[in-house]
Amino acid sequence: MSQPPPLPIAFGLPTERADAARNREALLCAARRLVAAEGADALTMDRLACEAGVGKGTVFRRFGSREGVMGALLNEHARAWQERVLSGEPPLGPGAPPRERLVAFGASLIELNLAGAELIAAAGDAVERSFAMDSFVATHVRYLLRAAGARGDLPLLAVALIAPLDRRILEQQVRLEGIDRDRILAAWTDLVDRLLT
Amino acid sequence: MSQPPPLPIAFGLPTERADAARNREALLCAARRLVAAEGADALTMDRLACEAGVGKGTVFRRFGSREGVMGALLNEHARAWQERVLSGEPPLGPGAPPRERLVAFGASLIELNLAGAELIAAAGDAVERSFAMDSFVATHVRYLLRAAGARGDLPLLAVALIAPLDRRILEQQVRLEGIDRDRILAAWTDLVDRLLT
Repeated sequence: MSQPPPLPIAFGLPTERADAARNREALLCAARRLVAAEGADALTMDRLACEAGVGKGTVFRRFGSREGVMGALLNEHARAWQERVLSGEPPLGPGAPPRERLVAFGASLIELNLAGAELIAAAGDAVERSFAMDSFVATHVRYLLRAAGARGDLPLLAVALIAPLDRRILEQQVRLEGIDRDRILAAWTDLVDRLLT
Repeated sequence: MSQPPPLPIAFGLPTERADAARNREALLCAARRLVAAEGADALTMDRLACEAGVGKGTVFRRFGSREGVMGALLNEHARAWQERVLSGEPPLGPGAPPRERLVAFGASLIELNLAGAELIAAAGDAVERSFAMDSFVATHVRYLLRAAGARGDLPLLAVALIAPLDRRILEQQVRLEGIDRDRILAAWTDLVDRLLT
């Protein structure tokens, strides 16, 4: 099975001087800790400056706004996830049969979208529709469908397979309707199998 | 084949006195004409008052804002469409085999979502996520899947079938990627057939 063509990286970042990059990393690290411990609501610019031991001005210069911090955290999540998909352990990463990779991909996209929901809401609309992220997901699913021998209009079938894992739909199902993730994944796996036969 | 249970109506409207209702209808009629002839951008409160031959104050009292007018136009569209689905001519309405009704429903939802896109954008977020409309669509698709003898987790398969016909996805495909509607409907019909076997 051949590897897919090079994929777009989630978000381009301008090149930074090494100390600026370290500075940025320290702030992101503090932000990550804060969100993990107390949720996205706890992250304010004041609080972040305090936790990272820098002036508030530095935080604003780095990220522009609270939305900017949330956006940067999301980028980090997305990049790490894309790394795992492209070169991590199977079955999410290469090496497993395409059908197993597809199911692992769906499971991990469900987790990513639900875990990111709070950050995405806090980051605002600008970050929500990330074209590069959408395009990564669509390209990967198309590649796995083809590798698994699926027939039909693969670009559109890939869109159809991804659409029900949209963050808004998952949130509605899990948070409002109380449907559990195992059931969502089971129905999605059923859909995958119907596309592969 | 038995009929589905009573379905939620798109939007509840408070009861109005007959003259107020006529007044409202005249304004909506002018709004509809304006949007059909010149697009949603042409509809301003001033222009609407002028076209309908009433004072601007009357328009504001009736609809609150330009978004309110757009929302009312959307409600009208949605109500008329639900009527056609529930009691109009087959294959969209009752009387055709469930698989044919499902395909007709998909085709008509694609048209509705694309035609409404401009109005929805103008009406803002409040109208965009109409719970009653989502629930009508989901209930109807679930009913047709069951009537067609589909097996599996029908509530979640219905969500999966509806998700790729989301307005944002359709707009991306048609307006940005230049995919034509026939191809979208063909891929969707393929998906339907895979769920029915």
